[in-house]
Amino acid sequence: MIWCSGWRLAAAVSNAGGLGTLGAGSMYPEVLREHLAKLKAATDKPFAVNLPLLYPDMEAHVQTCLDFKVPIVITSAGSPRTYTQRFKEAGVTVMHVVSSAAFARKSQEAGVDAVIAEGFEAGGHNGREETTTLVLIPAVCDAVTIPVVAAGGIADGRGMAAALALGADAVQLGSRFAATVESSAHPAFKAEILAAQEGSTQLTLKELAPVRLLKNAFYQEIQAAYAQGADAAQLAALLGRGRAKRGMFEGDLLEGELEIGQVAQQILDLPTAGEIIERIHTQCLQTLQGLHQRVAKP
Amino acid sequence: MIWCSGWRLAAAVSNAGGLGTLGAGSMYPEVLREHLAKLKAATDKPFAVNLPLLYPDMEAHVQTCLDFKVPIVITSAGSPRTYTQRFKEAGVTVMHVVSSAAFARKSQEAGVDAVIAEGFEAGGHNGREETTTLVLIPAVCDAVTIPVVAAGGIADGRGMAAALALGADAVQLGSRFAATVESSAHPAFKAEILAAQEGSTQLTLKELAPVRLLKNAFYQEIQAAYAQGADAAQLAALLGRGRAKRGMFEGDLLEGELEIGQVAQQILDLPTAGEIIERIHTQCLQTLQGLHQRVAKP
Repeated sequence: MIWCSGWRLAAAVSNAGGLGTLGAGSMYPEVLREHLAKLKAATDKPFAVNLPLLYPDMEAHVQTCLDFKVPIVITSAGSPRTYTQRFKEAGVTVMHVVSSAAFARKSQEAGVDAVIAEGFEAGGHNGREETTTLVLIPAVCDAVTIPVVAAGGIADGRGMAAALALGADAVQLGSRFAATVESSAHPAFKAEILAAQEGSTQLTLKELAPVRLLKNAFYQEIQAAYAQGADAAQLAALLGRGRAKRGMFEGDLLEGELEIGQVAQQILDLPTAGEIIERIHTQCLQTLQGLHQRVAKP
Repeated sequence: MIWCSGWRLAAAVSNAGGLGTLGAGSMYPEVLREHLAKLKAATDKPFAVNLPLLYPDMEAHVQTCLDFKVPIVITSAGSPRTYTQRFKEAGVTVMHVVSSAAFARKSQEAGVDAVIAEGFEAGGHNGREETTTLVLIPAVCDAVTIPVVAAGGIADGRGMAAALALGADAVQLGSRFAATVESSAHPAFKAEILAAQEGSTQLTLKELAPVRLLKNAFYQEIQAAYAQGADAAQLAALLGRGRAKRGMFEGDLLEGELEIGQVAQQILDLPTAGEIIERIHTQCLQTLQGLHQRVAKP
């Protein structure tokens, strides 16, 4: 959710009863401080900061989270051992994003409070095993005793109900909130999410860090490089720096990196974040009640 | 389920209350007739025959299904237009396997009675869009009015409950039944399914027909061919003929093609097919009742 989830979206989600999350991966240290100040002014509900450990400035971001007494930190794309103890000693709740049961076990051993298990269909950076959410969630639930949050492929109440059936304690939605009024994504990228259909996204750049993105002109350039037998160094050179900002924040639909999940095909409107939470909650309850009635019948 | 689902497995599933299915793709015409004769002697319950249209002998198989008054035919890996009318005129119920909502719509237009929507995590042949079951099922349910059967990634009652939550009317299990007493898979392949872990399978040979298989020595040869820049013709030559039989039926774990779903990581024992159905039914009901109690709480 880099470039999409700033203080406006996080505040809207938290005020509506969800756990609003700042995506710090795309922020310079001073930008994160500014967003945290505005977020704390805009909500008195719990919120989280997501720290993708492969991005720069993590030391500064960790200190910022401690300074601002951030109640919940989500770490991802790195080892749960790196910062968990430091956060726990300061009373911060820590969740770590995993793509396998093996990594979920390691995260529990590292002392995190919960894991977010994210499947192959999720947008952005993703696991190498390509395990889908449907297969991943039961495996993670069997592997750990701490709470499990399901992520990847969930954008409505049916998906939430399915995740709960698989054993998850909660769900995390990224793509759905990227296409809201409060998302800081560029309007052109939001429109592209709404236009996405089945097969519009692909997991690629597996030789670097696997990432799911929309198949735009930049994606076709990656494909052309593969066809030429490009190695990891050549792919890294093609990717360069700043592609995600260019695509998702600046709206360059051709040459930018447009990270979004498969579930974009289900996303057809641009409501407020609060409306999303209301819809999902209502549909999830209706789904579970409907199923109960169906199985209760003789 | 080629090489795994002969008359013994189909009869066991039907007798236990499921819809037992003969996998005709791996059978010569006289073999299908023999299996049908034995299956009809072993059960008086409904059963189905799966016809993957990309395999040879389909004309003969279709006539055999009509001759034996097969009640339900499942067509896959081809157009739903090819045989649906012929079967419908003979009173046969037809289901078609799809990997996208677009193909589900076409199947409904072709007059099939139901679609089986199979996600990326499924074993064997698979769709090019790579849409996972969690994303695919709601999309297909929104696209058609006929019943939807969910397939891919389901091996227990949690997965079945999740599929129902997504809107499916029923579930189809392949991998789970491949590892049963009655499965005709080679014992060495069954043991390999039990040994599978996360990341043990991969969707590959996308330039031919995408297929998910275990990462054995043959898979490593495919990877080596890719690294050398192999084209579709070279990949087809490497694949050759009879690899699936060699692996799944004859137990050549090194050079055979071992088709199985991601959910193999969840499969840890070799029970009877009847026990599988009993377990899944019980766990699905428990899951749905547990969820209902959870949401009914204040």
